[in-house]
Amino acid sequence: MARVYNFSAGPGMLPEEVLKQAAAELLDYKGSGMSVMEMSHRSSWYEEIQKKAESTLRDIMHIPDNYKVLFLQGGAHLQFSMIPLNLKNNGKADYLITGNWAKKACQEAKKYVDVNIVASSEDKTFSYVPKYDESSLSSDADYFHITTNNTVYGTRIRQKDIVCLDNVPLVADMSSNILSEVYDVSKFGVIYAGAQKNMGPAGVTIVIIREDLVKEVDPQIPTMLKYKTHADNGSLYNTPPCYSIYICGLVFEWVKKNGGVEALQKINEEKAQLLYDFIDNSKLFKGTVERYDRSIMNVNFVTGSEELDKKFIKEAAERGIVNIKGYRTVGGMRASIYNAMPIEGVKALVEFMKEFELKNS
Amino acid sequence: MARVYNFSAGPGMLPEEVLKQAAAELLDYKGSGMSVMEMSHRSSWYEEIQKKAESTLRDIMHIPDNYKVLFLQGGAHLQFSMIPLNLKNNGKADYLITGNWAKKACQEAKKYVDVNIVASSEDKTFSYVPKYDESSLSSDADYFHITTNNTVYGTRIRQKDIVCLDNVPLVADMSSNILSEVYDVSKFGVIYAGAQKNMGPAGVTIVIIREDLVKEVDPQIPTMLKYKTHADNGSLYNTPPCYSIYICGLVFEWVKKNGGVEALQKINEEKAQLLYDFIDNSKLFKGTVERYDRSIMNVNFVTGSEELDKKFIKEAAERGIVNIKGYRTVGGMRASIYNAMPIEGVKALVEFMKEFELKNS
Repeated sequence: MARVYNFSAGPGMLPEEVLKQAAAELLDYKGSGMSVMEMSHRSSWYEEIQKKAESTLRDIMHIPDNYKVLFLQGGAHLQFSMIPLNLKNNGKADYLITGNWAKKACQEAKKYVDVNIVASSEDKTFSYVPKYDESSLSSDADYFHITTNNTVYGTRIRQKDIVCLDNVPLVADMSSNILSEVYDVSKFGVIYAGAQKNMGPAGVTIVIIREDLVKEVDPQIPTMLKYKTHADNGSLYNTPPCYSIYICGLVFEWVKKNGGVEALQKINEEKAQLLYDFIDNSKLFKGTVERYDRSIMNVNFVTGSEELDKKFIKEAAERGIVNIKGYRTVGGMRASIYNAMPIEGVKALVEFMKEFELKNS
Repeated sequence: MARVYNFSAGPGMLPEEVLKQAAAELLDYKGSGMSVMEMSHRSSWYEEIQKKAESTLRDIMHIPDNYKVLFLQGGAHLQFSMIPLNLKNNGKADYLITGNWAKKACQEAKKYVDVNIVASSEDKTFSYVPKYDESSLSSDADYFHITTNNTVYGTRIRQKDIVCLDNVPLVADMSSNILSEVYDVSKFGVIYAGAQKNMGPAGVTIVIIREDLVKEVDPQIPTMLKYKTHADNGSLYNTPPCYSIYICGLVFEWVKKNGGVEALQKINEEKAQLLYDFIDNSKLFKGTVERYDRSIMNVNFVTGSEELDKKFIKEAAERGIVNIKGYRTVGGMRASIYNAMPIEGVKALVEFMKEFELKNS
């Protein structure tokens, strides 16, 4: 078996250790005589798995006790609707537009609330994170929505650069950088993330929500779209995506064993630095976004020639460096270096970039 | 490794063959160098998996070309909302109330349409399928909703006993008996089913919908809740629950290899007959529903003594006959004998029932 270095933007690489454990337990979970896929979600076996997943996540993210952790379905996309439907009060919301998904989240919200665009970097194809100050924020907004990492364009917002108002809940889509760097959960009203980048297989969405934001809402809202439905039932109102939650749990334990988010952040910064340093010194490859705003999860770069980009992607794949093609609407290359990408993978990529540059410039 | 006979009502048993293949491919799918869990949903590897799953399902269910097959999230519960939200036109719908889930589906629909209860068996705790005729159906209903198998109480409706109107789309929740007996898809407007009983792991919901019912709907409906969103994008509007779909695909192939739904129906009838025959001749055990309406998937029975029921469940578990406890609000025993339960499992259960009866009566 030869595993490749998979730079896919998501679903992406998972820790090999986790996959090995999943394979070993697939037909018989810890002597239960059954697969986790076959377990009743009301069984003590499964309840234990979900509880452990939640408590490990609470541990590694330092989630305060007054926050609920929900395991939902429908991806970040369904959250784009659930956020305004559940947080709507004054009927106004602030959005910071830093990429494709931020824009989609905002478009969906417009169906339910009046949206104020705090700032947008669309003028320069989202190649930077726009600056804004408190004067752009609405003091009567029901929430302020940001996207902490922009998967498509490769930018991110650090905790320390988030400007927000004390009385307006901060809502963050962290789909592509949850668990990769430290964010202070207590500063947020809601954090949500699809699992398929840093947590587990596609099909489960984590929602971390401050308890006072879990409210009775308009009864016309579909039952499955109310946070209260899931919060009141410990994410067991209906059958949850049990197997995906189990894998997430294994990944959370892997994070913990590797020193937690704090330790992974250091490794992630080192991995990203390796790539950005090479790009900055290269005559062939160029980065595509503002240096300060660079993501440590998604590293975008181009040669300037579509033909050379294609050649690079093809030859990289022949070496087991796969899924390095940029997003369909962007082009170029994108190396997604999530938590599970080992530093050896990044080194192999840099090595190949060096060789490619020598041969092609 | 000792596998148990798992009579869980869902998530339930999966074919051992499927689990073995999944385990073998878990770290490296067919030489791709990655797990199916790690694959981009836009990769040709994954697209092939999803296409194959769909085409095999079309094959074994004989799904006509004018039907779409969708792979969605949120379980049957989310369908309870999606059905009225998407099919609403005159604002009226007919519901046949044959169990807990039928009732829940109906309650959710009441938010969006005027509901006509065609018939209900709630008067006798859903222990039968109520008779009704065309006069109880509304000719101007947007659809008529039935539940073909009632997991909790253990009744089912055969195709030949479904009375419906030609011009009103028939909508069926088949969560607990899809692929277990033959239904003629062309008679239905929509068939939906959570995967976790006869198809695969929890977290994917199959929707089979006649193309003319996939329409532009009220723009206020969340994008993710419109069938059109998913139908127009081949269930790839956003990241689908890829790994669960992959397992479903393996199960569909297993069904096909075993002679299709037609062959499985015969085996299922034989399995159910073994159990019902024993119950009917037993002095200790009694069935709980009308004979004609008995499910071939969920077999409910009681001893008449709560204490003996408990003892039975406990001693059965010690023999590797597990999850045989009845639904929390019903009590007694329920043996769910889905497609993946081998006849040996049913024989082992009957053997144990015999022994238990001898010792305890």
